[in-house]
Amino acid sequence: MAKISPFAPPDLPALPAIEGVRLAACAAGIRYPGRTDLLLALFQPTTTVAGVFTRSKTASAAVEWCREHLRHGMARALVVNSGNANAFTGMRGREAVKETAQAASRVADCLEADVYISSTGVIGEPLDPGKFVGRLVELADRAEPDAYQMAARAIMTTDTFPKLATRSCEIGGVTVTLNGIAKGAGMIAPDMATMLAYLFTDAAIEPAALHEVMAPLVEDSFNAITIDSDTSTSDTVLLFATGAAAARGAPRIAHGDDPRLEGFRAALFDLMRDLAHQIVKDGEGLTKFVKVTVTGAESKAAARVIAKSICNSPLVKTALAGEDPNWGRIVMAVGKAGERADRDRLAIWFGDIEVAKDGERASTYEEAKGAAYMKRPEIDIAVDVGVGEGRDTMWTCDLTKEYIAINADYRS
Amino acid sequence: MAKISPFAPPDLPALPAIEGVRLAACAAGIRYPGRTDLLLALFQPTTTVAGVFTRSKTASAAVEWCREHLRHGMARALVVNSGNANAFTGMRGREAVKETAQAASRVADCLEADVYISSTGVIGEPLDPGKFVGRLVELADRAEPDAYQMAARAIMTTDTFPKLATRSCEIGGVTVTLNGIAKGAGMIAPDMATMLAYLFTDAAIEPAALHEVMAPLVEDSFNAITIDSDTSTSDTVLLFATGAAAARGAPRIAHGDDPRLEGFRAALFDLMRDLAHQIVKDGEGLTKFVKVTVTGAESKAAARVIAKSICNSPLVKTALAGEDPNWGRIVMAVGKAGERADRDRLAIWFGDIEVAKDGERASTYEEAKGAAYMKRPEIDIAVDVGVGEGRDTMWTCDLTKEYIAINADYRS
Repeated sequence: MAKISPFAPPDLPALPAIEGVRLAACAAGIRYPGRTDLLLALFQPTTTVAGVFTRSKTASAAVEWCREHLRHGMARALVVNSGNANAFTGMRGREAVKETAQAASRVADCLEADVYISSTGVIGEPLDPGKFVGRLVELADRAEPDAYQMAARAIMTTDTFPKLATRSCEIGGVTVTLNGIAKGAGMIAPDMATMLAYLFTDAAIEPAALHEVMAPLVEDSFNAITIDSDTSTSDTVLLFATGAAAARGAPRIAHGDDPRLEGFRAALFDLMRDLAHQIVKDGEGLTKFVKVTVTGAESKAAARVIAKSICNSPLVKTALAGEDPNWGRIVMAVGKAGERADRDRLAIWFGDIEVAKDGERASTYEEAKGAAYMKRPEIDIAVDVGVGEGRDTMWTCDLTKEYIAINADYRS
Repeated sequence: MAKISPFAPPDLPALPAIEGVRLAACAAGIRYPGRTDLLLALFQPTTTVAGVFTRSKTASAAVEWCREHLRHGMARALVVNSGNANAFTGMRGREAVKETAQAASRVADCLEADVYISSTGVIGEPLDPGKFVGRLVELADRAEPDAYQMAARAIMTTDTFPKLATRSCEIGGVTVTLNGIAKGAGMIAPDMATMLAYLFTDAAIEPAALHEVMAPLVEDSFNAITIDSDTSTSDTVLLFATGAAAARGAPRIAHGDDPRLEGFRAALFDLMRDLAHQIVKDGEGLTKFVKVTVTGAESKAAARVIAKSICNSPLVKTALAGEDPNWGRIVMAVGKAGERADRDRLAIWFGDIEVAKDGERASTYEEAKGAAYMKRPEIDIAVDVGVGEGRDTMWTCDLTKEYIAINADYRS
């Protein structure tokens, strides 16, 4: 296996229980024997759900299933398997999803439509649900409210550490909790990866309002990260709100613009961004965690395009790996983005070091300073393109020989 | 230095002289001592020129100069230096171009506007023309009609072999010659690379007609290749037509749609594609030369977007490096391209091997066959996306640890 990310936390956070959520996981032998690869989450009957999925035109059968059933917005069970993405598996793939939903609906005593499903792992291999649906009864029996670490492990593929985070906030004077788990190491590595995140809260929020709060927050959290520019067939973010806090006096919120959601929105965004950063920090083969801020663009969208161009450039990423303050490659990446930029007003900073100004190397810049800065594990790059007020920030990692080893040597 | 590409030709082609063109090169010490880094080409007074340049928003000063002077369409001299791109060098960069043009116009006894200039190499370092303009007199004195190999060497940076090609055809019953030289190893590697191509012919073609013939041919030659998805600040293709064949009875062509250009257009396209393929075959760190054909898309443009998505995917490229028949990553790259594709009609071939059909693994496909095919040095991937008649072909190479070594370790 790949070596552990240098950004892996020394201790995993212990997530508190969330009333109305129970979790269990086991090793079902879906691809590798002895590897925890099946997660079941059970929710109390008042649980609402919101989700955001991959924009891939070759989305997996499980993503199609979730998209369709999200419309009614209620959830009683979540089943996630790793080891097989059940993507590009034709009619058999759809049947595997249906069979999983049936089995989960029996153990959760709910409608099939209340079951949410994700699969992650190799693409194009038929997924045999017979391998794991029989295990769901046992998982339901021993599901517990505090099994988040085991749950986070069950959804890992090329991840080198489980990703967990928790926050709390008040809604109408009542404290509610938000927990999240995520996986992802290549933005997608179809052999054995993809980005999945599951968020849980005891807040009481109607489905439409839940979607209205959560969906826009994806833009600057999970959509603001890129490891290798590739897009999964299975990327999924699901937020389950059990409503259990209502019994403690929390209001049931019906509208996304309800001012009582202010603290919740902030806590949810913070949780999502934390998990997103953890995904980057487990980027395949990484040695650097890199923040790229673009200002002075025509709009936020233009700034995003430029930031993404910098983050995805193999030449910028290899320079970062080489601890090379090669700002010429940043100029190149701005130029190729296609958005308006004033070459002769372009400015670049590494942290507080002004590198380029007014379209050429800053007179105060010294290569030795830039080289020293690049030795840090966390790098801040800021670029002003000098044409407007648009700004955006993205996070990425470097591109190393280890990335190639992980992705070129995996099956060979 | 990097090891020589496995696709380097055992013998360099000897290009014939083209009447009206003389070439000379020398080592001017622009970045490294003893390395041939300065090319001067001189053209007879009837020479017309057409050009196509980078779409980068941070184009270099030399590109801006060429774009401006192409309008009048006549050329007497070409000066190319390697070792410094003179890009992102502000006002000093523009002054360096002007000074180079002045010096070249004196040795060529022409207007400054008849001088074309390219620079390739590191970005952001001021280029001191004092280092080389003094050498132009000597180069003009010893310029010769058959110095193409030396010319091709003078424009190399991270290239591991010089790129040369020649063709001939008839215009109005008179044989004309086309020669070309090119450089490029990263699609751009701003430290020491970029894509440059210079084409020479003795045909007699008016500037507007020359542009009309050449510009559309770029799309399926130089624009149909990608090594690392990065775009140079300096990419340049220039075609010089001396008109010397007119003295041998060749007609002077005034319109791009003149039917007498049929053979010329075909020979020019063939020459351009040959040089484009040579650039891919010198891709940094490559071990595979890969052709990707997309059919069944909504349009040629849509097919190009999908082909580019496949060619630029780090996960597809690392799988190629690992000789892994990982067709799931091709499905992923089709999905992320954003163009319409029918997942359930998608088909994939490796050479003649049908890998996937109707949205799942082909029943006849055996992994062992795919694995054996992937061991070849030249790989053909074909994908049908099942929605229309649009088709396109692109060429690329694999992504190896050697690419990372070249680009991460270069300056560190």
